[in-house]
Amino acid sequence: MSGKVTPLSGFPEFLPSDRIVELEFLDTIRETFELHGFASIETRAVEPVERLSNQGEDADKEIYGVRRLGAAADEKSDLGLHFDLTVPFARYVLENSGKLAFPFRRYQIQKVWRGERPQEGRYREFTQADIDIVGDGTLPFHYEVELPLVIADAFSKLPIPPFRIQVNNRQIPEGFYRGLGIEDVASVLRIVDKLDKIGADKVTQLLTADGGPALSAETAKQVLRLAEISSADASFVEQVRALGVQHEILDEGLERLAAIMTAANEHAPGLLVADLKIARGLDYYTGTVYETQLIGHESYGSICSGGRYDSLASDGKTTYPGVGISIGVSRLITRLISQGLVKGSRSTPTAVLIALTTEDERAEAMRTAAVLRGRGIPVEVAPAAAKFGKQIKFADRRGIPFVLFSTENGPEIKDIRSGEQVAVDPATWAPPADDVRPSIETIQENS
Amino acid sequence: MSGKVTPLSGFPEFLPSDRIVELEFLDTIRETFELHGFASIETRAVEPVERLSNQGEDADKEIYGVRRLGAAADEKSDLGLHFDLTVPFARYVLENSGKLAFPFRRYQIQKVWRGERPQEGRYREFTQADIDIVGDGTLPFHYEVELPLVIADAFSKLPIPPFRIQVNNRQIPEGFYRGLGIEDVASVLRIVDKLDKIGADKVTQLLTADGGPALSAETAKQVLRLAEISSADASFVEQVRALGVQHEILDEGLERLAAIMTAANEHAPGLLVADLKIARGLDYYTGTVYETQLIGHESYGSICSGGRYDSLASDGKTTYPGVGISIGVSRLITRLISQGLVKGSRSTPTAVLIALTTEDERAEAMRTAAVLRGRGIPVEVAPAAAKFGKQIKFADRRGIPFVLFSTENGPEIKDIRSGEQVAVDPATWAPPADDVRPSIETIQENS
Repeated sequence: MSGKVTPLSGFPEFLPSDRIVELEFLDTIRETFELHGFASIETRAVEPVERLSNQGEDADKEIYGVRRLGAAADEKSDLGLHFDLTVPFARYVLENSGKLAFPFRRYQIQKVWRGERPQEGRYREFTQADIDIVGDGTLPFHYEVELPLVIADAFSKLPIPPFRIQVNNRQIPEGFYRGLGIEDVASVLRIVDKLDKIGADKVTQLLTADGGPALSAETAKQVLRLAEISSADASFVEQVRALGVQHEILDEGLERLAAIMTAANEHAPGLLVADLKIARGLDYYTGTVYETQLIGHESYGSICSGGRYDSLASDGKTTYPGVGISIGVSRLITRLISQGLVKGSRSTPTAVLIALTTEDERAEAMRTAAVLRGRGIPVEVAPAAAKFGKQIKFADRRGIPFVLFSTENGPEIKDIRSGEQVAVDPATWAPPADDVRPSIETIQENS
Repeated sequence: MSGKVTPLSGFPEFLPSDRIVELEFLDTIRETFELHGFASIETRAVEPVERLSNQGEDADKEIYGVRRLGAAADEKSDLGLHFDLTVPFARYVLENSGKLAFPFRRYQIQKVWRGERPQEGRYREFTQADIDIVGDGTLPFHYEVELPLVIADAFSKLPIPPFRIQVNNRQIPEGFYRGLGIEDVASVLRIVDKLDKIGADKVTQLLTADGGPALSAETAKQVLRLAEISSADASFVEQVRALGVQHEILDEGLERLAAIMTAANEHAPGLLVADLKIARGLDYYTGTVYETQLIGHESYGSICSGGRYDSLASDGKTTYPGVGISIGVSRLITRLISQGLVKGSRSTPTAVLIALTTEDERAEAMRTAAVLRGRGIPVEVAPAAAKFGKQIKFADRRGIPFVLFSTENGPEIKDIRSGEQVAVDPATWAPPADDVRPSIETIQENS
């Protein structure tokens, strides 16, 4: 294989030091999910295309079809790469329902693929970290309070800017729209979902246009008034009531969202904001929906989203309602890295380089390395015998903090940052705890 | 989404308790790779098809092509899912050569896809765990000794049967064949590679057939004699010499393999077996090749393979020779699980279930859960208030070892295995270390 290599747009890859940041994030997220009792699963990358289709948001044409190059030319591609982890999870639940214990709490950290036009924060391949809880037949409401608290717990351990979880209940706009006499609720929801991206004027134009829902100017105004309501407590209810629209679905939505805000404020005051413009593009959500903004990075869009879905998984006899939330890991990390907010402390796990003066020392160096590794210290032996300065340079280039030399007086270790060199016994010496593993360096204090 | 769901052949998925086994394996492998100073990278799932093609082993028609469903009907699919991690890594090295420090040690644990006919141990989607070391221009020979030692270190920490790493150098058969006057070395190698699968008679038939390499009966016999040689030390050299074939490439191969055997025996006596029938199907290997058998499971084939490749990555100016080895994680684990050799100790990370007598206790239970999680103990709160017996059953079904009840006398914790129930202070109580996380239960002693 040879010749010029150019990156594929929308398929980001990390250099080793940035990958260290990603691994740290993934480890912290996984650890938090497990502390909250979520079990890991992985689903295959492909699903039958008909299972992936019709989930809204122009998703169909963005699906990547998959087929063997050796397949006959006229053979239809009936498999596609999953574009999220919720649809495959619903299928997994149906397939294994007899072997799972419900309510089933699972986390899933995997790549997903969407054939979108790539732009900052929008990739064709990216990693999501999802938690979902699925019941058989019914699913208690309290899980809708619990999930954002799990996310808040994970985020509190990560070097990220302050964030805001926005929550809504789809029944609120649905009931409100029905109360206004709007029939095509889904179309209006999808237009309102673009409010942050395209602004109120453009939304009004789309809502009132002949090709679209063709709302009257006054109805469109009411739709926008609802979308502009937000509150850090249950006071949004009064604001909605003041708009004078009545519908029983609206009442139910208001009651449920108020209950979430009240319960969340008990456990994590200020964490949630009721924001009535939040809709989520995917069609499978039926109740509560979540989005998350990094404060100061609002225009970047949501880095963690989800919601309640009541009918995604059904085998005809039983329906498995669920609620889930998904961290856009790639979106989050590429933002922090590209803004220079985080970086890896080195480009390799190695904490100690064992230097060689002659190739004859290699066998002994390998034994010394094994001793250090046995005590959990990452070590590598120099690729070749070389002079002192060259070995230091090798370590420095990778950010390896310590170089071990064999001297006439026995082994000595040099901290290449301070220059300090001391005699050591490899059987007992250990680096300071912070130097054993690479870590994330934050450039800006987070609050 | 509804209706009957059937598994896709060749795309295995684990239930939560088996996934716990897989996670344990992956964590141990990663930890070992990092202790040996390998840096993590991930590459995108897709490569341009022309980069994936022509790697031998009928790989081309087994590649999964990928294209957007929204693409024009006559648009050629020019992307494919990677079928290994070596080809993408070589591309990554070329793409980032200016930003990497050489020799570059990396590990990569990812899914790969091959459109093969599924059978036991052969999947269409599976996980590999690779280590490779790549140099710029040159790569010292000692890495060919080091890599199998890293694998042996990882395997020594895993609950797997005894194993045998078989090693060969492709220069040996190549030089030997050339010494016999054989011109189409690649075809003969590919046929010999099937020896374990199809047996000596069938191999002889293929070697002498008119459509194939059309060797004479005596030449085919010599080819088979070479393939039958193996030794746990460097004594294979004499056995080859006794066959009376001469070629300078053969001499070089023998010398190198003897050096590996000698060095490996210094560090891990008995770990490597020189086995001259080992060839590897992929065309990019140029020197040392490795395969690994589980003893007692020889017919299952190799669970860890690799080799040296000198010309996989070249940008015209610089060539980046490498050596790598890849653990077939899915192959290995599905074998152990299907044979009943390992299982997860429970189906969830949860160590403690907090029971609820009434729904009013939920807020307090959530606070208690947070206290335990803060000390690293995985906890979940019961989905609903229920009677004593039902809560025990909930925990038992998932293998959760402890249930915490609030009683008139304060919180008490029950070990549901022993039935023992004691008063505890959640701020200080912890389960025994072995119960904090799920683990792997081995059914058969491994030696």
